[in-house]
Amino acid sequence: MRFMVQMVVRLPGDWPADRLDAISKAENARGHEMIKAGKLRRLFRIVGKRANYSIWDADSLEELHENLQSLPMHPWMDVTVTPLIEHPSEVAFKELHGDIPPLD
Amino acid sequence: MRFMVQMVVRLPGDWPADRLDAISKAENARGHEMIKAGKLRRLFRIVGKRANYSIWDADSLEELHENLQSLPMHPWMDVTVTPLIEHPSEVAFKELHGDIPPLD
Amino acid sequence: MRFMVQMVVRLPGDWPADRLDAISKAENARGHEMIKAGKLRRLFRIVGKRANYSIWDADSLEELHENLQSLPMHPWMDVTVTPLIEHPSEVAFKELHGDIPPLD
Amino acid sequence: MRFMVQMVVRLPGDWPADRLDAISKAENARGHEMIKAGKLRRLFRIVGKRANYSIWDADSLEELHENLQSLPMHPWMDVTVTPLIEHPSEVAFKELHGDIPPLD
Amino acid sequence: MRFMVQMVVRLPGDWPADRLDAISKAENARGHEMIKAGKLRRLFRIVGKRANYSIWDADSLEELHENLQSLPMHPWMDVTVTPLIEHPSEVAFKELHGDIPPLD
Amino acid sequence: MRFMVQMVVRLPGDWPADRLDAISKAENARGHEMIKAGKLRRLFRIVGKRANYSIWDADSLEELHENLQSLPMHPWMDVTVTPLIEHPSEVAFKELHGDIPPLD
Amino acid sequence: MRFMVQMVVRLPGDWPADRLDAISKAENARGHEMIKAGKLRRLFRIVGKRANYSIWDADSLEELHENLQSLPMHPWMDVTVTPLIEHPSEVAFKELHGDIPPLD
Amino acid sequence: MRFMVQMVVRLPGDWPADRLDAISKAENARGHEMIKAGKLRRLFRIVGKRANYSIWDADSLEELHENLQSLPMHPWMDVTVTPLIEHPSEVAFKELHGDIPPLD
Amino acid sequence: MRFMVQMVVRLPGDWPADRLDAISKAENARGHEMIKAGKLRRLFRIVGKRANYSIWDADSLEELHENLQSLPMHPWMDVTVTPLIEHPSEVAFKELHGDIPPLD
Amino acid sequence: MRFMVQMVVRLPGDWPADRLDAISKAENARGHEMIKAGKLRRLFRIVGKRANYSIWDADSLEELHENLQSLPMHPWMDVTVTPLIEHPSEVAFKELHGDIPPLD
Repeated sequence: MRFMVQMVVRLPGDWPADRLDAISKAENARGHEMIKAGKLRRLFRIVGKRANYSIWDADSLEELHENLQSLPMHPWMDVTVTPLIEHPSEVAFKELHGDIPPLD
Repeated sequence: MRFMVQMVVRLPGDWPADRLDAISKAENARGHEMIKAGKLRRLFRIVGKRANYSIWDADSLEELHENLQSLPMHPWMDVTVTPLIEHPSEVAFKELHGDIPPLD
Repeated sequence: MRFMVQMVVRLPGDWPADRLDAISKAENARGHEMIKAGKLRRLFRIVGKRANYSIWDADSLEELHENLQSLPMHPWMDVTVTPLIEHPSEVAFKELHGDIPPLD
Repeated sequence: MRFMVQMVVRLPGDWPADRLDAISKAENARGHEMIKAGKLRRLFRIVGKRANYSIWDADSLEELHENLQSLPMHPWMDVTVTPLIEHPSEVAFKELHGDIPPLD
Repeated sequence: MRFMVQMVVRLPGDWPADRLDAISKAENARGHEMIKAGKLRRLFRIVGKRANYSIWDADSLEELHENLQSLPMHPWMDVTVTPLIEHPSEVAFKELHGDIPPLD
Repeated sequence: MRFMVQMVVRLPGDWPADRLDAISKAENARGHEMIKAGKLRRLFRIVGKRANYSIWDADSLEELHENLQSLPMHPWMDVTVTPLIEHPSEVAFKELHGDIPPLD
Repeated sequence: MRFMVQMVVRLPGDWPADRLDAISKAENARGHEMIKAGKLRRLFRIVGKRANYSIWDADSLEELHENLQSLPMHPWMDVTVTPLIEHPSEVAFKELHGDIPPLD
Repeated sequence: MRFMVQMVVRLPGDWPADRLDAISKAENARGHEMIKAGKLRRLFRIVGKRANYSIWDADSLEELHENLQSLPMHPWMDVTVTPLIEHPSEVAFKELHGDIPPLD
Repeated sequence: MRFMVQMVVRLPGDWPADRLDAISKAENARGHEMIKAGKLRRLFRIVGKRANYSIWDADSLEELHENLQSLPMHPWMDVTVTPLIEHPSEVAFKELHGDIPPLD
Repeated sequence: MRFMVQMVVRLPGDWPADRLDAISKAENARGHEMIKAGKLRRLFRIVGKRANYSIWDADSLEELHENLQSLPMHPWMDVTVTPLIEHPSEVAFKELHGDIPPLD
């Protein structure tokens, strides 16, 4: 199953650089575990903001929740989860024209 | 360049089936041209709605606009374009661990 | 998998009674098929509105979408799908106290 | 009487783990009393958020308010109470097809 | 049980006077039945708008819904139902000072 | 003149019980003065929230403002004042059927 | 008593010029009666929109409602009424410095 | 040039009385300078709120900004500036009926 | 004086091509007159939408309103006018470093 | 490529003057570097607010993000990035009438 997850991070403006740095490193480390596990499939930074659109795969809703909640910045995030399915136009494309080129 | 595009389609509720069918076919046909051209990279249906999240690549903003506007359902869409960049966590992943598995 | 689905139905105010009646009957008939199939688990009317909260089970997101889209009133609905998991407090209850009484 | 209650919990991001733990335990304990009393009928976690949809029964509005207000996290919650009634489609189902399977 | 109900009526701007007049008369007639039955307790026009705040009593949520839905203008209304209880300050007043003067 | 006033109180979540208790007592005491003066006509708690709908009478807008501002919790409130008039349906009721029963 | 009234007029985009002209003339004529009566004190067009801020005096809320509702464009307006009082800073000004120059 | 300015002041709820008093006095003093200079033409308190509608004249947008920013409470304000022009109905009134009575 | 004007155009989705074409031509023609007059300084299309950000100069608010209202698509537009001044950072730049390069 | 960027700055109301002054100087200095580099093309202060509309050019989305994020006030900003293209009306103007006068 696939989900679009929008995360808007609202950290206090006056955190010192080392606290920001520490939580960013921890966030990256946890994100990398999620990528390796095939759960966090893509992670896009929204230009100009401390926010992202990310694409998550999950075998269950429980797994997705656990993974999102495990992110160190989660207590400062507004998270919106949107369930996705294959679009009928993509299905039709594959039938007519073959595979869709993978997203680099 | 990459963009997250959310499209919410608001067709009148009482269009006859053949009008819906005709515009859906035309929409698919144009979408397929965009996929073949490497511009519409992925198209996800939002569960429960006539709406989608789609990922578009474009060499220029002009090209992106022209492609979005060329969709037959565009006059009935609310379109939101969000510019994206590679997330620093993905960059760090590649440096540390190699490629991110392509999104099937 | 379980989902909370809020449906707000916006029918034109001046539909004649027989058209309202016909679509309501068709909506009920389709809903009953969904109940029998174990997919539409509960359907609650929101007091004072032509709107509901409903609880849907689905083996896949594709199935959920197909079921929601099959409702005759779907073209006039605003649909919001919220993925749900068991709440940790319910999990703890079961461990400590046994089953939660079924929802009549 | 039945109510859909949406609770969005906004705890400060930097509470220490033991404070979070203590209030979560107290919240669970109170919730379990409500389940045993047949008042909190179901409690669903919204995926990705510290938020829930919950279904409450109450003999009176006074009772419902007292129960909601007794939750230890209530001072940090945004609470929305929506009165529900049996949906006419469920009523029709029971007449035509018998009981709706209980919600596990 | 008591409820605050806000009704915002959105009639098409170009209805002819006799259609407006007919539905207003029907609306009044039904409202008067509700007042006589002790269900519609008060009805206040919001200054400058075709909208009201109204106070409804009901023995059940089912009764409240049926009553609201029976209004001839209901198909053109946005209805918001807010459950109310006696305010603790009113309770304390009665204990300390006796009855609150009835609302004329 | 009559006004519907919605008050949403946003007190910090971690106030100690005695501070909450002190301000609640002061709020009640001031409210009781307003009731005795015939200005605060009714005060309803919104179920599940630290919020109310209240009905205020005032001889002038100045008086209403002074009364609202005199409440000890006013600095933590979001206040919305809606001017009300008798609804034409209530006027017609009185002409046709006599007095509307007073709101207990 | 004084009120700030914001009116946003939403006329259909394709009304013919003579219909627009007729309703504008009727609207002006009724507004002029209100000015002469000392009720509509000022009327400001919001730059770029078919909308205004207007200042109304009224001896009663009933009078204000009747006047607003008598405007020919009222069925196509979104009207927001905000009760105003003299600002304490204006009061202090008058005590300290004399009259505030009249608003031309 | 004329502008409608809405100011919503959000002071922390627990400021001590003397701090509130000091900033209110400073705010008044600066406001009085603006009135004397013919820039702040009218200032209306919104009933029930620490908020106002005010009418400002300015010879330039720079002047208006400087004046608004010079208010001691400006750092705690949400300010909305709406450019105004004479309404065509006021223009027509003057042509047909002479001056509009000044706003006391 | 300078203003940022956001225009969102909401034309009916099913206008025939020739009607769209005719109004677009008229809109362009009027826009060109505004450019020649030095009033419409820049006009940017928002990617993916029938909407724009535009920068207008005006000697008066009256002139700006007249110009905006003269656009043939105005009856179908949502228009938001934001007054602008030179930013203090641009002022400082000019003092320190000379002219800002003109916007091509 | 060109982007409209709206920045709303939310600094705590009680920062001392020297802290405000220091961050403003740093913000200006960084902005000036961006102007010199041809990236920040124009910067307009919104009248009455600590907010701006700014026009940015960028060779890539990565560059734009890096530039926005480098601003010292960025942690206290709400940033909205809107991709822009030349408006077809400007294109037509150039073909018919020659260059659009540069924006001073």
